[in-house]
Formats: sequence, C-alpha cells, structure tokens
Amino acid sequence: MPKIDLSQIEQTSTTGYPPPFNEEVAGRHYRRLGPALGLTDFKVSEVMLEPGAWSSQRHWHDGEDEFLVMLEGEAVLIEDQGRSVLRAGDMVAWAKSVRNGHHLINETDQPCRFVCFSGGEVTWGEYSDIDMQFHADGRYRRKDGTLY
Amino acid sequence: MPKIDLSQIEQTSTTGYPPPFNEEVAGRHYRRLGPALGLTDFKVSEVMLEPGAWSSQRHWHDGEDEFLVMLEGEAVLIEDQGRSVLRAGDMVAWAKSVRNGHHLINETDQPCRFVCFSGGEVTWGEYSDIDMQFHADGRYRRKDGTLY
Repeated sequence: MPKIDLSQIEQTSTTGYPPPFNEEVAGRHYRRLGPALGLTDFKVSEVMLEPGAWSSQRHWHDGEDEFLVMLEGEAVLIEDQGRSVLRAGDMVAWAKSVRNGHHLINETDQPCRFVCFSGGEVTWGEYSDIDMQFHADGRYRRKDGTLY
Repeated sequence: MPKIDLSQIEQTSTTGYPPPFNEEVAGRHYRRLGPALGLTDFKVSEVMLEPGAWSSQRHWHDGEDEFLVMLEGEAVLIEDQGRSVLRAGDMVAWAKSVRNGHHLINETDQPCRFVCFSGGEVTWGEYSDIDMQFHADGRYRRKDGTLY
C-alpha cells in the first residue's frame, strides 16, 4: 500500500487508568495503526500529545519490548536517570523486564507526535511514581495486589 | 535508556544477494538496532541510502509484517500500483502475505534515512522484478526452486 493516510484512521483519547491517574493523559490522542493496516506481528500506534499532556504514567513492561520514533515537535523523556529532550527523528528503545520507568511529557506550547511499537506478550508491568500495576487481564491493581 | 545514539551502533553494508542483484544495494548502509539495544520481540533497523541506492530488490514477505518510518530526506516507494514519494514523518505498512512487492529508491542527490520494523516468522518471500525468492534457510533461489 502507499504511504499511510492518518486522516483515514480513527483517532481515540480513551484510557483505562482509574482517576486521578487519567488526568495527565487527557490530552493524549492516538491511532492504533496495526488493526487498521492488517498488522498482527507487532503493535504500532501514532500518538499526539497536546501541550502539557503525558504519553502515559511512567511505567515499564515485564513482557514487551518497546520502541519509539519522534515524528514532530518536542517532548521530554523522563526515566530513572533523568530527562532527555526528543525531537523529530530521535528514537528510543525500552527492552522488556528492565525496571526503568519511562514516559514522555509535552512541555512545549505546540502539539508533538510520535509513533511507538511494542511486541512480545502482555504479562504485567508497574508504574514508577504511583501505586499501580497493569496485568495481562487488563485490570489495574495497587502494588499490594488489590484491584482498582 | 535515553535516546539512541546511532553513532555508537555498528553500521554495515553487507548483502547476501547474488550478483548482479547486489549492485543496486551497494549504497545501502544499515544498523540492526534490536541486538544492539536488547530487543527480541521485533526487528528494527536504521537504513541510509546514498543517492541512487535501493533499499532492496522489490519484494514481499509471506510471514512477516513490515512497517517503515521515513526519518530524513526523500525516497520513492515503488509498488505494483505505482510510485509514492516519502519524506520525513511519512509511514508505510506492509502486511505479510500480501503479494505486492515494494522497495524504496533514493532518486535525489542527497542521502535519505528511514527506520524499518518487522515481526513474525521468516518463511519465504519473492522478488517481483527478478527471478529470485528468499527462504527460511537464508538461501536465495530462482522461482523454479534451484539455488543461487
């Protein structure tokens, strides 16, 4: 197929995060490209962050490798060791099971966009800065195992 | 980890294509990012094409989904239905088993760069414009099954 026409793929802003953890991602708008394009071997999403929005709560994955390519604008990547500014063409990889939480924040006054990939198996993972884990059943739990 | 420093990852220009099919990819230089970054759930490579270079012989995959993000410069995507110009930020997806051969050619006088992803299982695939197939054993064959 020729180059992807993003305007033809549905954009969504939903999140399963329980309040108040959903607030920081309210300005995150994304398209799941894999289902729209017939891809099943890995997941790929195009994500737009409004000024101030977060890509996610800061997290790491037990079972899935992740890779991100910055497309437009600027975002700050935050990890255990600090901050990195990402601009168009910059790329980041997160190997599964590495317990170094990561997320992006758009600290500018313009939208930014990136595309992110993941593969492997959803097992579980943890959020670095809040009392929350995600699990293969799609439910969010506190770190003592109780459900939200 | 912070953003990827490509200068720290080995670049190669090798190909297993038998002559004369190797000639068009002599100006293709790539880095396999997955092994360098500890990713195993999908393959990802950064590719630079010198002016005139091809990304590959035009091909399709039986068992692997592919996805490409253009990073810099300009290339022409060639498929059964014709040509598409790709520039920084453009993206293309190729679902496995779709017998529509594709490759990129740098027709400009400047280098171009892209990153490409693949997942799934290497089974076999075919080259659209030449008498060649690739197979899971890593060998190239003519379309009558004889080895190169």
